Amino acid sequence: MSKQFKSVQETLEKYIPAEELSEVKRILYGYNRGQHVKSIPICQEALDLANKNNFEIVASKVEAEPEQLRKPRIVRLGIIQNSIGAETTAPVQDQYLAIEAKIEKMIDAAGAMGVNVLCLQETWHMPFAFCTRERYPWVEFAESATTGQSIKFIQRMARKYNMVIISPMLERDEVHAGTIHNTAVVVGNNGNIIGKSRKNHIPRTGDFNESTYYMESTLGHPVFETIYGKIGINICYGRHHNLNWLAYGLNGAEIVFNPSATVGELSEPMWGVEARNAAMTNNYFVGSINRVGTEYFPNEFTSGNGKPAHKDFGHFYGSSYFSSPDNCCTPSLSRVSDGLNISEVDLNLCQQVKDKWNFQMTGRYELYAKFLEDYIKPNYQPNIIRDPSMK
Amino acid sequence: MSKQFKSVQETLEKYIPAEELSEVKRILYGYNRGQHVKSIPICQEALDLANKNNFEIVASKVEAEPEQLRKPRIVRLGIIQNSIGAETTAPVQDQYLAIEAKIEKMIDAAGAMGVNVLCLQETWHMPFAFCTRERYPWVEFAESATTGQSIKFIQRMARKYNMVIISPMLERDEVHAGTIHNTAVVVGNNGNIIGKSRKNHIPRTGDFNESTYYMESTLGHPVFETIYGKIGINICYGRHHNLNWLAYGLNGAEIVFNPSATVGELSEPMWGVEARNAAMTNNYFVGSINRVGTEYFPNEFTSGNGKPAHKDFGHFYGSSYFSSPDNCCTPSLSRVSDGLNISEVDLNLCQQVKDKWNFQMTGRYELYAKFLEDYIKPNYQPNIIRDPSMK
Repeated sequence: MSKQFKSVQETLEKYIPAEELSEVKRILYGYNRGQHVKSIPICQEALDLANKNNFEIVASKVEAEPEQLRKPRIVRLGIIQNSIGAETTAPVQDQYLAIEAKIEKMIDAAGAMGVNVLCLQETWHMPFAFCTRERYPWVEFAESATTGQSIKFIQRMARKYNMVIISPMLERDEVHAGTIHNTAVVVGNNGNIIGKSRKNHIPRTGDFNESTYYMESTLGHPVFETIYGKIGINICYGRHHNLNWLAYGLNGAEIVFNPSATVGELSEPMWGVEARNAAMTNNYFVGSINRVGTEYFPNEFTSGNGKPAHKDFGHFYGSSYFSSPDNCCTPSLSRVSDGLNISEVDLNLCQQVKDKWNFQMTGRYELYAKFLEDYIKPNYQPNIIRDPSMK
Repeated sequence: MSKQFKSVQETLEKYIPAEELSEVKRILYGYNRGQHVKSIPICQEALDLANKNNFEIVASKVEAEPEQLRKPRIVRLGIIQNSIGAETTAPVQDQYLAIEAKIEKMIDAAGAMGVNVLCLQETWHMPFAFCTRERYPWVEFAESATTGQSIKFIQRMARKYNMVIISPMLERDEVHAGTIHNTAVVVGNNGNIIGKSRKNHIPRTGDFNESTYYMESTLGHPVFETIYGKIGINICYGRHHNLNWLAYGLNGAEIVFNPSATVGELSEPMWGVEARNAAMTNNYFVGSINRVGTEYFPNEFTSGNGKPAHKDFGHFYGSSYFSSPDNCCTPSLSRVSDGLNISEVDLNLCQQVKDKWNFQMTGRYELYAKFLEDYIKPNYQPNIIRDPSMK
């Protein structure tokens, strides 16, 4: 076993005999509808790109039932996880270009595979330097969501492959006093900028010192209607907030991406749970994306956990995967390497599962609107019934 | 392999070598804090009861960090899963007594093990006959939540073992025109009735024809403060509703039980996801309870799925387990046998995890109160940003 464990699914398949493996995968990953989750072949061009540039490709498809009045709405979704491309001591522009060079090859592979909608990882164009609490040079990675070099690059790739691309990035909002935001820009298949979404929930835990760099979004829960379906973006820590997932769903999202940056010790057992719960209970597809590798910074920092100062955030464990609105999930990328995960889905499955389970019809949203209205009042009295025999 | 597969965890432990198994369990079950999840010994008296009466006992503990100002608040939680005790063609009273006899032995074992808070499965005193849509004899199982024979039995057992017992039952509310409810009665350790909670979300899916028997609760999300901690009860289908879990949490629950009745084909891949997500994101313990076995009814019924009429609901897969507020879960009971699952927990962990992750502080409930207030209006306009280049 290497220093970093590679993948749970690979381990299960290596050791467990076929008949029992089928039960294990049914229960853990929802493969009870075997006919509905299949591998799809990876074309030679994509394989060559992957081999030459050291990234992994995983590809699967999730089917839906045929309907009488609607045709299948088949789209290929792609998610990319990557490590940084240069040392964090390199000049900012060199660091950016090194990542861009990696991403370009992976988007080329996605293009070769006919991916229609692609999402990159959180602030893909920079190291996740927010652990340091240092301002410079890290805030120099921030750039305009409409004219920055990273968005120009994404627009070029979107046009090249007729692809919708979501670009999660560190935004400098020049119109609003140069404030910084954790943003996802949605680029249409013509290379046009459709709009942007921002991170709704900013962590205050572990080394996630992001609240010293940017604030909570005031843009709400926009859903972007593209030629390939309706898309929401729940950035990183928002995956711990069920209301955040819910709001994208009630606004009509069929696909919600969760571009993230998270490390093993803190969150790994949550990674396979929260996004799947969101997909199951809101009935949309989720693409969960985590960066990969360990990033070392020039100056040491502490983590508020009593441990000595150090220069890294820990291992970003990758493991990017898709969850389906029924209850399946696709195989993940590994915990250790750059990769492109592709899932061909039929968006009709979203409404089919809603019609099967009726969660939205039984949701009692009036009750909860009232509950939250009461809860936020300073004098809220929780509904506690105390055992009267207690002293 | 028997006709019914027994347990995922058992299979993993049987085949996967130790070093890799440790990584698999860390990622799947949150055993990364190995010092915090341990087995605890099962006493001879409980073992004898289990062997003699054919049920399984699983016991574990979840620890918390020591604090300076609060002592640990150690409680032993118990959950019981059981099959019915007699054929569904037997007289109603005989069916009840056969189940009571089983449950009594299991509560005796819980008592021998020093369980402080115990929860039984949904409508534990009857078969889950709601699939049939027949009224009689099934509604004859309904009884008063204060004077019915099942609650008298539970009160006696609570007094005997100084135990808080939650009794999920089919309630006949004589005060309100004899209406029927899916209820959980909370019995204090003195045998006193502290109060009751009712099912907030009633399914309309598969053979869950419960909405023809009872309606949604109007009691809100009460949390019962007992000498062993603050308890909420999220009955069955309410586990698919994240707002339901949230409301119990915001009302202060430290333990939420989810007494359920659910079958393999429909929900099994969701079973290990939804409750854990609730525990992780709301930071309380969850006890997930599912009945076990296949129940055959005298008259055939159909399932609205195009398949022939039949007499059973499918296999209730048991698998009752606990989720912890950090991100661990305990071993489950099996998919095939009656059982008692015990977890000794330190309730201080709830606040400790809240303080670590800050989900409640970053929850932005004002935003969501406003969102839901808008959403429930008939003329709600979802926040959709359409690609203007689409025709």
